[in-house]
Amino acid sequence: MITIAVNLILLEQHEVGDDALVRLTGIRAQHVREVLRVKPNQHIQIGIVDGPRGTGTVLGLDGSEVTLNCEFESMLPARPAVDVMIALPRPKVMKRLWAQLAAIGVGRILLVNAARVERQYFDTHVLTPECYRPLLIEGLQQARDTRLPDVSIHRRLKVLVEDDLAGSTGEATRLIADPGARASVASALRAAGSAERCLVAVGPEGGWTDFERTLLGSHGFVAVSMRPRALRSDTACVALLTLVHEAMANGRA
Amino acid sequence: MITIAVNLILLEQHEVGDDALVRLTGIRAQHVREVLRVKPNQHIQIGIVDGPRGTGTVLGLDGSEVTLNCEFESMLPARPAVDVMIALPRPKVMKRLWAQLAAIGVGRILLVNAARVERQYFDTHVLTPECYRPLLIEGLQQARDTRLPDVSIHRRLKVLVEDDLAGSTGEATRLIADPGARASVASALRAAGSAERCLVAVGPEGGWTDFERTLLGSHGFVAVSMRPRALRSDTACVALLTLVHEAMANGRA
Repeated sequence: MITIAVNLILLEQHEVGDDALVRLTGIRAQHVREVLRVKPNQHIQIGIVDGPRGTGTVLGLDGSEVTLNCEFESMLPARPAVDVMIALPRPKVMKRLWAQLAAIGVGRILLVNAARVERQYFDTHVLTPECYRPLLIEGLQQARDTRLPDVSIHRRLKVLVEDDLAGSTGEATRLIADPGARASVASALRAAGSAERCLVAVGPEGGWTDFERTLLGSHGFVAVSMRPRALRSDTACVALLTLVHEAMANGRA
Repeated sequence: MITIAVNLILLEQHEVGDDALVRLTGIRAQHVREVLRVKPNQHIQIGIVDGPRGTGTVLGLDGSEVTLNCEFESMLPARPAVDVMIALPRPKVMKRLWAQLAAIGVGRILLVNAARVERQYFDTHVLTPECYRPLLIEGLQQARDTRLPDVSIHRRLKVLVEDDLAGSTGEATRLIADPGARASVASALRAAGSAERCLVAVGPEGGWTDFERTLLGSHGFVAVSMRPRALRSDTACVALLTLVHEAMANGRA
């Protein structure tokens, strides 16, 4: 039975021995045996977290263990050229979002406070690496990527925007979704010229306040239109990141 | 506490009396009292399922009940111009998808079988109107829409495509997402000319088979490119529908 789509098995660097052998156990071994139903000498797609993709050749299936001989590519996959700054959604929505963000492809995930974010959202275990790292890896394995997004949590939007952002995202084009704006994502990116990266801000479900909008606008965030339908944070993130990736891909074509 | 974003309260036609009065009870009354925190004479956005939007004036807050005097617009909101045909995803993913599809805006949802869909997915309660109708209404209330998508379930792709589809979606432009395709969604829609509607096909997580792809291609489905990242069905649906809505909006602009 298909329980989850794993299109590439991700390994941790320390799991790969000097002899290029890996012994999979647990859930990954189970997936390889029961879903991929591999036989000895068969090849499967593998990768190292934040490292290269590669090919694993099945050497042995021993009880619950799977032994692979690994060969890796010389180049790392490119880091996704889009970063996302999200007003922290409620925990249930955030939990759904981790794997989707990693699957769509983002370099950085900046979670920020905003006036219309409830304070207690910051106390959830959903923001601990123990919770989100496996979910990010799930998304990467789905999308055949290895590059784990950087995650940072910012309790003060003003400090993030005024002080931290300059250094951390460099010369990225900055976009903010706004139902009142007229420029499309594609036209705003064209107007911004040839920035290598793009940082997209997604507001809380209740929207940014006027103060927050002005703050972001005065720090280079260009308003881009979204259709005038209010979307849940996770749906809005997926929609906006899709438009940005599409526009950047077409801009390079 | 914000538990869910309700931007418009949807009423059933039979709830609105000839005197234009509505008595809300239960979860909607609780939302109006505790989240919107309305006072008498305050206005809230309302709508009738598959009917017009309107304004409700709070007449009274009596115990757990809220009485509204309703005024409705003369025009119905336009039915979304995009329909979606989805190879049935696993129940957990499908359950997440209902509200998101209604929020993004689709006229019809056609759920179909495919070679890489597990047969038992069709037996889930997630496909009963008792399960999906409240989820669709949740999405509509989020997006301030009233138009409930039509839902139909098709156990035979071939019968759907060869026999049923001609009548049911008329002259819609037909698109199918394909990582190998070169045309973007926007260029495919431009090339198709001025169709009023668009039907988009989203495959199973394992992809369509060659047979299915040929079948769909020979019935007018034009392949459009998606970035070469495999996405979960719900993420893929949101991404593809976003691109189609954006391209159709730009085409009309």
